Amino acid sequence: MAFQGKKLINNPNDVVTEFIEGLVETYHGLQYLDGFPEVKVVLRADVSGATYDKVAVISGGGSGHEPAQAGYVGEGLLTASICGDVFASPTVDSILAGIRAVTGPMGCLLIVTVLLYPEPGYRFVGIDCCIANYTGDRLNFGLAAEQARSEGYKIETVIVGDDCALPKSQGIAGRRGLAGTILVNKVAGAVAAAGLSLADVASEAKRASEVVGTMGVALSVCTLPGQVTSDRLGPGKMELGLGIHGEPGAAVADLQPVDVVVTHVLKQILESNYVPITRGNSVVLMINGLGATPVMELMIAAGKTVPKLQLEFGLLVERVYTGSFMTSLDMKGFSISIMKVDQTLLQHLDASTKAPHWPVGSAGNRPPAKIPVPLPSSRSMKSDELLSRPLQLTEQGHILEVAIEAAANAIINMRDILNDWDSTVGDGDCGSTMYKGATAVLDDMKK
Amino acid sequence: MAFQGKKLINNPNDVVTEFIEGLVETYHGLQYLDGFPEVKVVLRADVSGATYDKVAVISGGGSGHEPAQAGYVGEGLLTASICGDVFASPTVDSILAGIRAVTGPMGCLLIVTVLLYPEPGYRFVGIDCCIANYTGDRLNFGLAAEQARSEGYKIETVIVGDDCALPKSQGIAGRRGLAGTILVNKVAGAVAAAGLSLADVASEAKRASEVVGTMGVALSVCTLPGQVTSDRLGPGKMELGLGIHGEPGAAVADLQPVDVVVTHVLKQILESNYVPITRGNSVVLMINGLGATPVMELMIAAGKTVPKLQLEFGLLVERVYTGSFMTSLDMKGFSISIMKVDQTLLQHLDASTKAPHWPVGSAGNRPPAKIPVPLPSSRSMKSDELLSRPLQLTEQGHILEVAIEAAANAIINMRDILNDWDSTVGDGDCGSTMYKGATAVLDDMKK
Repeated sequence: MAFQGKKLINNPNDVVTEFIEGLVETYHGLQYLDGFPEVKVVLRADVSGATYDKVAVISGGGSGHEPAQAGYVGEGLLTASICGDVFASPTVDSILAGIRAVTGPMGCLLIVTVLLYPEPGYRFVGIDCCIANYTGDRLNFGLAAEQARSEGYKIETVIVGDDCALPKSQGIAGRRGLAGTILVNKVAGAVAAAGLSLADVASEAKRASEVVGTMGVALSVCTLPGQVTSDRLGPGKMELGLGIHGEPGAAVADLQPVDVVVTHVLKQILESNYVPITRGNSVVLMINGLGATPVMELMIAAGKTVPKLQLEFGLLVERVYTGSFMTSLDMKGFSISIMKVDQTLLQHLDASTKAPHWPVGSAGNRPPAKIPVPLPSSRSMKSDELLSRPLQLTEQGHILEVAIEAAANAIINMRDILNDWDSTVGDGDCGSTMYKGATAVLDDMKK
Repeated sequence: MAFQGKKLINNPNDVVTEFIEGLVETYHGLQYLDGFPEVKVVLRADVSGATYDKVAVISGGGSGHEPAQAGYVGEGLLTASICGDVFASPTVDSILAGIRAVTGPMGCLLIVTVLLYPEPGYRFVGIDCCIANYTGDRLNFGLAAEQARSEGYKIETVIVGDDCALPKSQGIAGRRGLAGTILVNKVAGAVAAAGLSLADVASEAKRASEVVGTMGVALSVCTLPGQVTSDRLGPGKMELGLGIHGEPGAAVADLQPVDVVVTHVLKQILESNYVPITRGNSVVLMINGLGATPVMELMIAAGKTVPKLQLEFGLLVERVYTGSFMTSLDMKGFSISIMKVDQTLLQHLDASTKAPHWPVGSAGNRPPAKIPVPLPSSRSMKSDELLSRPLQLTEQGHILEVAIEAAANAIINMRDILNDWDSTVGDGDCGSTMYKGATAVLDDMKK
């Protein structure tokens, strides 16, 4: 059965240009190139190619993965993002326009995510056919790089493919790029911001891309604007090793508690030999929501993943990034990325950035997670002592005691009436609540 | 029909404590009080009540609205957040523990959101009955405030109720608190961080709470952990004026293009006389996703709302905050909040904060939204001229021209074969693409 998903949009063909207009209204450090609908490029408002004195870092790809990549444009991260249509590679002209807009004499690094772009109407029939379809970005970014070089620009390219879901033997045509790309972008952006050369930026980004692995779990298929949505995932099922365009995952399984899901995903990433991570290594962790996963569930996954990495896999977890960083429209589920880090990579990840969607508050070392619940202040203790009942009451004290007892008993006797009154406007427990309080007052007076 | 929603959790009873554990793993500036499951308090790791020399700002309420409120704990915003169970008010003991943990001699402001907490098993039958149920937070925060005062703490309380969905005549018991609370929190946090007195912090927060209005639109009902989910909203329908606990909205309507939805919501907020906003005022705008709304759709709404506010309502939009700030678990839809601002309130909103979920990049003035697409650099123009065909070719030039023509014709003749080959591994358009390129080369040579 398929259904028409509900979306708050206008014309499905305009979603990407209207997204960019809203993005630029929201973030004052961003601009876009006036070339809609062909050219969809978001760039730093404070950078002008001819005079930019640092290496430009450009990424991009099909839209539908927001906030990636346009949300990561900003000082210290991307210089520009090239937006394709939903789940479609951007055109060579668009990429070229982006390169020309932000590239100065120091050159430009293109970070290309090996993504899967299904043709319109194309139906994936299994994980194997994906291999033939990953080349859209690589081709278009590659052609744009060649053209830009012929115009005299210095261009380097780094390709990210962090997916660990496919068995390695099937990975001949390269792995898919998933949320690990965001970490690679951050490393490249930090090195560029530090003023290093294009060769240095490219080599650090390449190094980062080789030590990050990702695997995803989906509970639903995403809803493409203007298209019907498959519900091939039945109730109580999840897909493991999903792509981020709604293509089927490597396996379908019964939905399990998130503890079990996390363990499965970690084993696949860390025992697949894709990523050179071994016991004793330092790592950073990214828990990435796919678009419709509540923050609560992402945090639960983060809280469960950290001790597993430490205790079961012997890794030191230096940083945790939890949020929706690279989505698939409104897909339910998350991906887990693990990147091996040394002090240099960690500094790049910790370096400050003005990109609006890079997570805030994860840098630096962690204090103890919990502290004791504070007791009432000593002031209060003291006044409690002063207020305890003297052995002999004064006359006023006696009157007061009798009055309090009478009031408490009156409330106790009114329990049912108060409950009745409350039940006509609320949940009918007012009398019971007051009864508890009055009883406690009488008990206290007997002590 | 109802269905069991899929969630990536463990025991539904543990979601809030496990959420807090993950939150604290992620954000290194946060700690929690060691009092699970009764006391669920997230607080700044760098604040200790006894020595804290600024006004503490505490908010909180039922969980399920993440990142609110725990995600807004940090320097310049909340000092602590008190977390209730999902959609349930926190207990008096928990609130009191939070007050004791962070309140120093300057005192503490409690920001209370008037929320609707259905009793377990309670079924809302209409918007009217909500009025009787809003009091959970007000009651528990009020009792905790009294108790804290009796212990010698200086406590002030501000109540936020920014909902504009109910007709004013029905609003006798106070309005519900929605995403506008986040803006009020930010104002209070900034004033407190500036070192002002409790009276000043409270009066600025109260002033902010009186000039913000919010209204929401939902496309789906949220999925509570461990409970079945109603699908009372049929296909193609939306609810206007929703609460954030899944209670029915003020009206059900056919789903419209987001342009139409935005216009309706703006009219309700600005023409309901709830909020004293008139033509010529400066405002800030918050587009708040309810949990399962893609960033793309939120940005589209933001991009459409700004010009409407400016052109149709004559307002100056100073800032735009777009994201999922106060959610209802995995509800689809968004709310729009509009707050009237003067320069003072704007400075409070722009003031820096370390709270992880306050939006980055919206402060300051906006440069032009778009810039022209750059032309190829002059270097490239020049080399194009040099490379144009001379009138008389040299012998080598003639040979090269013939070779290029032959190669192009060979590719043109191979179109169908290449398409066939490509179709066995990909999408079968390789020959057609190469054909286009070769034809373009031949056309260029004729010029």
